[in-house]
Amino acid sequence: MTDLPGIVVTGASGRMGRMLIAAVAASGKARLVGALEREGHAWVGQDAGVAMGGAPIGVLVTDDPLEAFAKAQAVIDFTAPDATVGFAALAAQARAVHVIGTTGLEPAHLAKIAAAARHAVIVRAGNMSLGVNLLTQLTQRVAAALDADWDIEIVEAHHNRKVDAPSGTALMLGEAAAAGRGVDLAAVSDRGRDGITGARERGHIGFAAIRGGDVVGEHDVIFAAAGERIVLRHIATDRAIFARGALRAALWGQDRIPGEYDMLDVLGI
Amino acid sequence: MTDLPGIVVTGASGRMGRMLIAAVAASGKARLVGALEREGHAWVGQDAGVAMGGAPIGVLVTDDPLEAFAKAQAVIDFTAPDATVGFAALAAQARAVHVIGTTGLEPAHLAKIAAAARHAVIVRAGNMSLGVNLLTQLTQRVAAALDADWDIEIVEAHHNRKVDAPSGTALMLGEAAAAGRGVDLAAVSDRGRDGITGARERGHIGFAAIRGGDVVGEHDVIFAAAGERIVLRHIATDRAIFARGALRAALWGQDRIPGEYDMLDVLGI
Amino acid sequence: MTDLPGIVVTGASGRMGRMLIAAVAASGKARLVGALEREGHAWVGQDAGVAMGGAPIGVLVTDDPLEAFAKAQAVIDFTAPDATVGFAALAAQARAVHVIGTTGLEPAHLAKIAAAARHAVIVRAGNMSLGVNLLTQLTQRVAAALDADWDIEIVEAHHNRKVDAPSGTALMLGEAAAAGRGVDLAAVSDRGRDGITGARERGHIGFAAIRGGDVVGEHDVIFAAAGERIVLRHIATDRAIFARGALRAALWGQDRIPGEYDMLDVLGI
Amino acid sequence: MTDLPGIVVTGASGRMGRMLIAAVAASGKARLVGALEREGHAWVGQDAGVAMGGAPIGVLVTDDPLEAFAKAQAVIDFTAPDATVGFAALAAQARAVHVIGTTGLEPAHLAKIAAAARHAVIVRAGNMSLGVNLLTQLTQRVAAALDADWDIEIVEAHHNRKVDAPSGTALMLGEAAAAGRGVDLAAVSDRGRDGITGARERGHIGFAAIRGGDVVGEHDVIFAAAGERIVLRHIATDRAIFARGALRAALWGQDRIPGEYDMLDVLGI
Repeated sequence: MTDLPGIVVTGASGRMGRMLIAAVAASGKARLVGALEREGHAWVGQDAGVAMGGAPIGVLVTDDPLEAFAKAQAVIDFTAPDATVGFAALAAQARAVHVIGTTGLEPAHLAKIAAAARHAVIVRAGNMSLGVNLLTQLTQRVAAALDADWDIEIVEAHHNRKVDAPSGTALMLGEAAAAGRGVDLAAVSDRGRDGITGARERGHIGFAAIRGGDVVGEHDVIFAAAGERIVLRHIATDRAIFARGALRAALWGQDRIPGEYDMLDVLGI
Repeated sequence: MTDLPGIVVTGASGRMGRMLIAAVAASGKARLVGALEREGHAWVGQDAGVAMGGAPIGVLVTDDPLEAFAKAQAVIDFTAPDATVGFAALAAQARAVHVIGTTGLEPAHLAKIAAAARHAVIVRAGNMSLGVNLLTQLTQRVAAALDADWDIEIVEAHHNRKVDAPSGTALMLGEAAAAGRGVDLAAVSDRGRDGITGARERGHIGFAAIRGGDVVGEHDVIFAAAGERIVLRHIATDRAIFARGALRAALWGQDRIPGEYDMLDVLGI
Repeated sequence: MTDLPGIVVTGASGRMGRMLIAAVAASGKARLVGALEREGHAWVGQDAGVAMGGAPIGVLVTDDPLEAFAKAQAVIDFTAPDATVGFAALAAQARAVHVIGTTGLEPAHLAKIAAAARHAVIVRAGNMSLGVNLLTQLTQRVAAALDADWDIEIVEAHHNRKVDAPSGTALMLGEAAAAGRGVDLAAVSDRGRDGITGARERGHIGFAAIRGGDVVGEHDVIFAAAGERIVLRHIATDRAIFARGALRAALWGQDRIPGEYDMLDVLGI
Repeated sequence: MTDLPGIVVTGASGRMGRMLIAAVAASGKARLVGALEREGHAWVGQDAGVAMGGAPIGVLVTDDPLEAFAKAQAVIDFTAPDATVGFAALAAQARAVHVIGTTGLEPAHLAKIAAAARHAVIVRAGNMSLGVNLLTQLTQRVAAALDADWDIEIVEAHHNRKVDAPSGTALMLGEAAAAGRGVDLAAVSDRGRDGITGARERGHIGFAAIRGGDVVGEHDVIFAAAGERIVLRHIATDRAIFARGALRAALWGQDRIPGEYDMLDVLGI
């Protein structure tokens, strides 16, 4: 068992952090060697299992990334842009694979991540699920196969605490559709339809956002023509799929040469 | 056959006008006695069947409502607000039931219609289908039964030529939900979600609009809570349902005392 | 806190047992006073929290229902028919409310439960979620409002380990539809459509079952007519809704006179 | 206009026959040169437009295929297996493209069609819509990309007069899924689930059929795994899509060397 790749989870106390710790423990393919929280957090110094309300697992939560990363083969990180940029540099120093699920990265963050990827393997994706990544690929393919007689609409549903619309995944699907058509998404997006909008413009890509309850995430890509429709749909019902995808990325990255990868590389689709 | 109620269809050359003429002909429960178009329209003076590209049906299209209404037991009217107000007065003079499917009526129009309804039967509805009217009732009932732990979202899809959002039917469903909850729709509407919206506010009612292809009309009323959802859905696939609903209203109105009615009265639900 | 109603959970180690223990703990409206397993089960004698892989909660798992029920105001029971019948008698002796989510009860079991209900409050339902119970009521109402021009189909999806089809909830919805129409479900059921079936018979109620993944439970009641459809849909994404419903029933039952009740009584819908 | 390819429609009085006649007339890319019915049919000798209840179109319905095909560049044929086999031989003699939408063809019929295809172009497909053919391709691709952790279910809905289940299109999608997985569909099909079925077997492909109203045709291919699902959906709302697909096939076939083709060839996808 000690030969299994060692994983550090950042943001251990967050919703994704807990998911990741549980996913590593359940996988049988990796072992948890570190759990990171920010300085001053109540969990620091506690056993990670106990902090999560369960049995002890023999890993103390730490606020020292350097020490944690030194014994790891991979770091899985769903935190925030500034923290992630710092972790990228430290993970590269430690030659650990850095799996980044953090969203909201700006060009300045991306540049620093790219710099770190010259020395280590980084896998970065807005959505780590197999299903969404496959759907993204299908969307691009179908958009390329169909002409603008087929109106494209992207509809997503998420829980009532989500603060932005459309979702990052919806925008990723929109980018794929625009790429398939060879157009610039920003130039053809219809967002926030309301009031007297006029007739739909040919070639546009529409977005609609539904918010309610605790919906994990549902995305429809609709291609609507006269007399028929194709709908490509993904339904996520358990955030564990994102944790499993991240772990898969961490394991996949063990054999790779330095560089920046995405989930399509990991999944080989 | 001559004992069947005689129907006049206004706006004969329009999409709904043609539907209505076909629905009356197919019903076996009424007979077409008049088809109206505005002065100068190419159809005036032609046989209505021939004008529609079919076999003659023995009714000439006319531009004289007074003459047409004089021999009718009912007028079915999906035209425009100003025309409808004029027809209401003339139908009342002729003691013909006036079935109004016209949308976009302002308070001034409604006042004139109410005046006409003192002398004759008027049935007016934003959507004449049995299904949508039943759904409206269910929506109010479910909204009354559930508390604000259940987020309400109304999602509609229509063809790509529709110029406004949300649809009138979506707003009617929203009004029913708000009535069930005892709140004012205008105060709790979330429309056109886009960008950094913040978390959903408890008690709000959201709207989303999908536009594409030739979708006749689809409406979902979603009630989303933690761990479960109820969805009330209506799918219209043929505009003939609106024509059949209007004809049903025309027949139902034959036995009534003067007044203004809606489809819930007609359907007895 | 000791004034909160005391709850015993039967079948503590099962999927619903764990859910129930967690729901009671999280509710703040009741306290766990007992956790029952069958004689010889490995959990017996252990702290229930520890047995579930978490922190201790101060309740030892027992195999003695009499002792457990003596200190309880309610027993929540999702086990098997024979066990449930035994628990009903013991709960009645203890004057504890017995909430029964057990399925597969035969007439002989039901007779014994009815006998117990002469002395104590029993709440029994095939599905404890608010949403499904409301949907059942809507189904009956809509089936009563619409004539047989509207074909009724009930479609359900569940996880790939489910061994029977249609689901008990689908049959409950079918019974509600048949009751609304005033017909006998057995006489009009279309189940397992396959091969040359002939055209659909007017007035029949069809069932279809989808099995895959870990779908918790989804039910559609479709009313399909010419040109339009109404769909009443329930989506369950978290089994905790069944546990919360059971707990709500346990609390509701505290003030009632002896008798057998269902979730419609509890929910007041 | 006389340079446009001349089309003969067989089974002129049937639902698809009328659709085809209308589609040819509306296309501007072809002209109707013949309309065929069986000997003794009431339409024989009448103008096809008049027989359809419309204005005359200058083409008399005939019962003589040889004479009709002689002046045609293509024959579009949605009739029955025996009639289609006869038409295939005659169309080959006339060097007309034969577009076959007839279903229920047995191996003996297929052998005769293959023989005719040595001398002329034949395009044959179980479903002529662009959307369904694209969906079939996607289904195979996704089935190949995902392992058997993803359960495949195919759900279809059709009108209440359909006499068989699953639909031919559902079976076509099932064949595509099985091909993607490299398995034999017959060996893994779950059809007509009802009663105590036991848990779903890994690797199986399930089918469910919904029947009601006048639904033209809806197909879902569901891939369900733990925590997520992908759904590929096609919705047909107007049979005209099948007629337009057939006409497209007829035009596409004008430039081809003899042989048997399908819609994937026509669509170039």
